[in-house]
Amino acid sequence: MTSKENQLDILIENGTVLTMNKECSVIKNGAVAIKNDKILAVGSKDELADMKAVKTIDAKNGLIMPGLINTHTHAAMTLFRGMADDLPLMAWLNEHIFPAEAKLNAEKVYTGSTLACAEMIMSGTTCFCDMYLYEDQVACAAKNAGVRAVTGEVLFDFSSPAYGPIEKGFEYTRMLAEKWKNDPLIRIAVEPHSPYLCSADLLKKANEMAHEMDLLLVIHVSETKDEVAKSIATHGITPVALLAETGVLSPRLLACHCVVLSENDISLLKQYDVKVAHNPESNMKLASGIAPIPLLLEKGIGIGLGTDGCSSNNDLDMFMEMDTAAKLHKVNDHDPTVMDAKTTLKMCTIEGAKALGISDLTGSIEPGKQADVIIINTRKPHLTPMYNPMSHLVYAVRGSDVDTSVINGRVVMENRELTTIDLEKIMADARQCVEAFI
Amino acid sequence: MTSKENQLDILIENGTVLTMNKECSVIKNGAVAIKNDKILAVGSKDELADMKAVKTIDAKNGLIMPGLINTHTHAAMTLFRGMADDLPLMAWLNEHIFPAEAKLNAEKVYTGSTLACAEMIMSGTTCFCDMYLYEDQVACAAKNAGVRAVTGEVLFDFSSPAYGPIEKGFEYTRMLAEKWKNDPLIRIAVEPHSPYLCSADLLKKANEMAHEMDLLLVIHVSETKDEVAKSIATHGITPVALLAETGVLSPRLLACHCVVLSENDISLLKQYDVKVAHNPESNMKLASGIAPIPLLLEKGIGIGLGTDGCSSNNDLDMFMEMDTAAKLHKVNDHDPTVMDAKTTLKMCTIEGAKALGISDLTGSIEPGKQADVIIINTRKPHLTPMYNPMSHLVYAVRGSDVDTSVINGRVVMENRELTTIDLEKIMADARQCVEAFI
Repeated sequence: MTSKENQLDILIENGTVLTMNKECSVIKNGAVAIKNDKILAVGSKDELADMKAVKTIDAKNGLIMPGLINTHTHAAMTLFRGMADDLPLMAWLNEHIFPAEAKLNAEKVYTGSTLACAEMIMSGTTCFCDMYLYEDQVACAAKNAGVRAVTGEVLFDFSSPAYGPIEKGFEYTRMLAEKWKNDPLIRIAVEPHSPYLCSADLLKKANEMAHEMDLLLVIHVSETKDEVAKSIATHGITPVALLAETGVLSPRLLACHCVVLSENDISLLKQYDVKVAHNPESNMKLASGIAPIPLLLEKGIGIGLGTDGCSSNNDLDMFMEMDTAAKLHKVNDHDPTVMDAKTTLKMCTIEGAKALGISDLTGSIEPGKQADVIIINTRKPHLTPMYNPMSHLVYAVRGSDVDTSVINGRVVMENRELTTIDLEKIMADARQCVEAFI
Repeated sequence: MTSKENQLDILIENGTVLTMNKECSVIKNGAVAIKNDKILAVGSKDELADMKAVKTIDAKNGLIMPGLINTHTHAAMTLFRGMADDLPLMAWLNEHIFPAEAKLNAEKVYTGSTLACAEMIMSGTTCFCDMYLYEDQVACAAKNAGVRAVTGEVLFDFSSPAYGPIEKGFEYTRMLAEKWKNDPLIRIAVEPHSPYLCSADLLKKANEMAHEMDLLLVIHVSETKDEVAKSIATHGITPVALLAETGVLSPRLLACHCVVLSENDISLLKQYDVKVAHNPESNMKLASGIAPIPLLLEKGIGIGLGTDGCSSNNDLDMFMEMDTAAKLHKVNDHDPTVMDAKTTLKMCTIEGAKALGISDLTGSIEPGKQADVIIINTRKPHLTPMYNPMSHLVYAVRGSDVDTSVINGRVVMENRELTTIDLEKIMADARQCVEAFI
């Protein structure tokens, strides 16, 4: 292993490795070997002792794990963080969010998305699924930041400030898919907003495009009681049943929220192997309700975790989201054994990857996968002592405990210093944007 | 103001001051002047321009606010953090917590409490109310760490590993109260565990001692449905009604948890001006239930926030507790306007101080109060942009964003470096303790 071509690029050592592989193997005093953009080997320090690397990263007795996957967000909404809280849903939307969004443009979306990438890297997220306006800018921001992303332009029945009439939305999505099809970090999705903002025609066309181009299909569905009541009043059936009738339920559909579900809805999600993006903090803050996640898990439905946008959360910290999710379902189900630490961790790693259709690429530390790896510094009072790494990751670790992040084999943060983003500049740019919104 | 005796000790400047005074005044470009252990002045930078200080602290455009108050914890349980999660309540207690507690001693309690003080300082808490064993050690740990504390030995009907039979518990409490009565940081409380572990006699004696010695009385009450059902089965009335009948409800009683309350219970709490310590994360993790906090607030009952111990949370971060509390009650009440940021912030500051009977000393930044002040660094991506400081403090700031902490006029942390605790040593000591428990 001494010839140059056999030399590793990165060896991460001196930490406990949580692989999140099928067995959820945990390797004490483990190491991860990275060659180019891929994981070459994972094992004990001894097993990897002969490997020589250009760069060795010391995990300082901390935790080494796959980067976290945020299955649902609107990255550029970082610009609206804290602009309007504690308000009724319609006042929040109509008086604050919609007027502010009307003032967005491609440049501001790039700024907000880059700020989001900085926050995500600094809190351990290495991959996110986005739905918003000007998504080419989101893809560019993610690409430049070195973050893995599934991005898709939001489609609805009315005219978009970004692309105009809906036909242009499909053209734009097709353009995105063509432009980014060979990119190692970016995947494009087809993203109709919701059953209530999209006609059956739009939904069918979106679904056809997703199948034709082999893309993920992403939609908001059954987020609030009101949405479900209106669907029943208008169509006689629930939003999920309406999607079934329209023919868009399939394994490539990511249904975001799924807070208000009937028994029949759950059967349909299971029958068509639809994936669910669960956003507990946003659902709590907007008082939307609590998705029946333990029940969906029991049925074997695939679930990823997400933060939703920063105006309803108000951050992108997936460690916090795990903590809240695990606790919320315990109290809601009157059962402290549901959503245990391992189940919750899987939702942010391998199950998140499956939800986005990219579990061949990421979501676990296994040889052959892309190298998306984070290191958590556990030499802190709130992480001392440590009986169980999984417990710490869900109930005690915060995003700020992530020291180092590698995405697709590239170090994007080391010892909390970003290598791909000028942090002071992007924060200044974001503050500048605010002047347009207030 | 140039003669030495008029010189300030500390001037904190260049930040937005959230006073948490009666009007919740917010002062942009504000400053706080500290002389000895007290706040001398608070105002705009211009108003305090003539003041000269031995030490000037630059808040770097961040937020300056009163230190947070944790109204209910068991500090030394940091040693059991993550030892047992995701378990049924009784298995958790009987198979893990009680056996581990049987192995505690004074030295271990000092270690666990000092570790807790490190974690609390590093997450912005400047005052905590503790209930546990070997509380003289907790008081010593807090004193040495420079943290304000209300501490009290837990009293119950059976023999304590710390003091033996219950008479000795009262003697020990009296000794503590005498020993610490003139201390600037430590107050002693009388702390019967709960109506289910304490006889009416014990409760009456504890209440008499609290009144006689002018001490806070602290108790766990109505934490679970099971507790309430058993009380009704045994006594024919709820735990709160039982406390009323025993004669221990009064303004000096801090009732921790209050998850399961009847209408009559709420009327009694209001009638006797009892204060409540709300511990949402612990109640969620143990699946105990959700305390009806918005209803208690509506009735005008005083409420402080607490983390409870680290084995049911698993951290002491009051910023996280605020975030969770605000979101939990919104979703539970189906109303995004309840537990707004200001209400939530008050629970961790001035209302927390009132709950502990020390609002003359702390809980707000006002001239004449003891100088318990923290500075939050907002130059971070997850705190950018900033429309509303209160929103950020509840929904986006984490304990790790606290840069500097002053307690009773003493800088206990500056730029995240602790000045009173040897962090590496206390973490090593805590790791050492663990060997006894596993």
